[in-house]
Amino acid sequence: MDRHRDPTEKRRLNKYSKERGAVLNMKIKEIRLEELNPEKFITEKVAEIRSIVGDGLAVNALSGGVDSSAVTLLGHRALGDRFKTYFIDSGLMREGEPEHTVSLFNDIGVTVELVHAEDTFFGALSGRTDPEEKREAITQAFYRDVFGRLVRETDATHLLHGTNYTDVEETVAGIKRQHNILEQIGIDPQKAYGYKVIEPLIQLRKSAVRKIAISLGLPEEICNRPPFPGPALAARVIGEVTPKRVKIVRMATQIVEDQLSSTGAFQYLAILHEDRVTGVREGKRDYGLQIEVRCWESTDAKIGSPTRLSYDLLDPLAERLTTEVPGVVSVTYNITKKPPSTIEAI
Amino acid sequence: MDRHRDPTEKRRLNKYSKERGAVLNMKIKEIRLEELNPEKFITEKVAEIRSIVGDGLAVNALSGGVDSSAVTLLGHRALGDRFKTYFIDSGLMREGEPEHTVSLFNDIGVTVELVHAEDTFFGALSGRTDPEEKREAITQAFYRDVFGRLVRETDATHLLHGTNYTDVEETVAGIKRQHNILEQIGIDPQKAYGYKVIEPLIQLRKSAVRKIAISLGLPEEICNRPPFPGPALAARVIGEVTPKRVKIVRMATQIVEDQLSSTGAFQYLAILHEDRVTGVREGKRDYGLQIEVRCWESTDAKIGSPTRLSYDLLDPLAERLTTEVPGVVSVTYNITKKPPSTIEAI
Repeated sequence: MDRHRDPTEKRRLNKYSKERGAVLNMKIKEIRLEELNPEKFITEKVAEIRSIVGDGLAVNALSGGVDSSAVTLLGHRALGDRFKTYFIDSGLMREGEPEHTVSLFNDIGVTVELVHAEDTFFGALSGRTDPEEKREAITQAFYRDVFGRLVRETDATHLLHGTNYTDVEETVAGIKRQHNILEQIGIDPQKAYGYKVIEPLIQLRKSAVRKIAISLGLPEEICNRPPFPGPALAARVIGEVTPKRVKIVRMATQIVEDQLSSTGAFQYLAILHEDRVTGVREGKRDYGLQIEVRCWESTDAKIGSPTRLSYDLLDPLAERLTTEVPGVVSVTYNITKKPPSTIEAI
Repeated sequence: MDRHRDPTEKRRLNKYSKERGAVLNMKIKEIRLEELNPEKFITEKVAEIRSIVGDGLAVNALSGGVDSSAVTLLGHRALGDRFKTYFIDSGLMREGEPEHTVSLFNDIGVTVELVHAEDTFFGALSGRTDPEEKREAITQAFYRDVFGRLVRETDATHLLHGTNYTDVEETVAGIKRQHNILEQIGIDPQKAYGYKVIEPLIQLRKSAVRKIAISLGLPEEICNRPPFPGPALAARVIGEVTPKRVKIVRMATQIVEDQLSSTGAFQYLAILHEDRVTGVREGKRDYGLQIEVRCWESTDAKIGSPTRLSYDLLDPLAERLTTEVPGVVSVTYNITKKPPSTIEAI
């Protein structure tokens, strides 16, 4: 499955899987890519959603990623007008992403309502530097504050969510708490937030979700979009997440995506560090910012290797980041595999 | 001069030099590599040292770098028994470096006394995180505390020091305060510490110092040793410099030097970051340490480019750092030129 796997990696993966198997006690059974029948899966999930929601009303949050995009189409196919899709602008999205995603779905006949919630998210993140606290703040802002209100306003009974198998696995294993994980860590959303959660993709890894997305007729741009984390750019800011720091990582992200989209890599990203390093600008010391670039070869985010980017790609990347993003004096490239690294830094 | 200079770099260097020229108002005139006559230079400096020290006694600190090694031989040639060389073990040196350097000089007939001063340096650095404060603490520990005492004990009148032209230039320009710069920033060592300072190499850049070292008959290992910063491993620890954190960066340094010495690069180093990043170990989250590797192509440290290391070199480097250095879950490689980066991080 992984075209970049070498013998060392295989040994590492075997060891890793065994250890994780011991730790996990998951009730959810994975449907692997090779055993997935997309048409059958879609038919079953559509029926399942209809049966669960009954006469109720369901909502979902579209981020533009392949997971939430697939859920959006499954929901519409199952419930038609009794399904409502929102794009939550958390202030943590990439440049132009909210407008672009809404317009892309309008083009395929799906109405998406843009909800401005920047203040809610930045308020929840203010003063927090611990990664788990930041993730928890985003979870609460999303499920309790923003969706709690939307559900009350619309009388929705259910939230459809694009949780996938890797999200659950990593959360249960204690690697990272994914922001869309609730029941697996003992939160009853009905009790806590006033609605039930349906997770039609929970048995699939990313590559299987892509296959479903293609079957659903989603545009190429969505099906092959590199993964983007649930906590969005907050996952790429080490230290406090402020509007100013998100603006910096947003600029860096745009440059990295511009420069690396042609590589066909699984995922590529920019991380804003909190550490400052000494630099020189106009002959003077500039105690400045550092951006770390990561670019991954992977099929399912479970394991990954840094893409062997040529220096003819890396040089202009560093040049653009240090000249176009204010305050950046240093750029590094990740050379660590996952494990022991993770895909994102936070 | 610079075998890796391309047209973009030339333009950048020109701009950079012009700006620095405006900022600097240096009384010291550089002797450039192409105009240096090593034999003539050595004869003149030996005479000059004799004339300045007169009937007095001089001392110097040997670090094992090419600058202080050249000064050690110049001092011995000029003053014979009236010159005493110390190796100050600041606790910030690389693995085995104090013992190895002392023995290397013993082999060429120069007695070097090893002075243990670890507690003085770690005491001075305790609680400091600002790079300039760290540099200042090392300067004071070195010149005032350790050398002040040694000079009083030996009745020495002069300290010979290996300050070079780049050190002065960067300090005066306000890029970094080099720990061996005193007079250029308005400190009178006679008044402050009770001895005068002689800087025989102050007109030379690194490549010229190398030529002098060869003429003086210093071993190949010393002449071609990659530069190592004055503040030693403290220049490679972002945040507080503690014995524990120096131990980590020392282990990482040894691995980086092992793996990259065959590249023939100008300089290669490991930096311990203060930022922590998420990693996975044995299937569990390991919120761990990050090591940044830098490897430079340069002739004089004034400008530099990251060496285009192959991934066949980078992969085992990351593998060793994450398996052999406790707590390290992430390794990055610097891809920024100097400027806007500097060679070291602090």
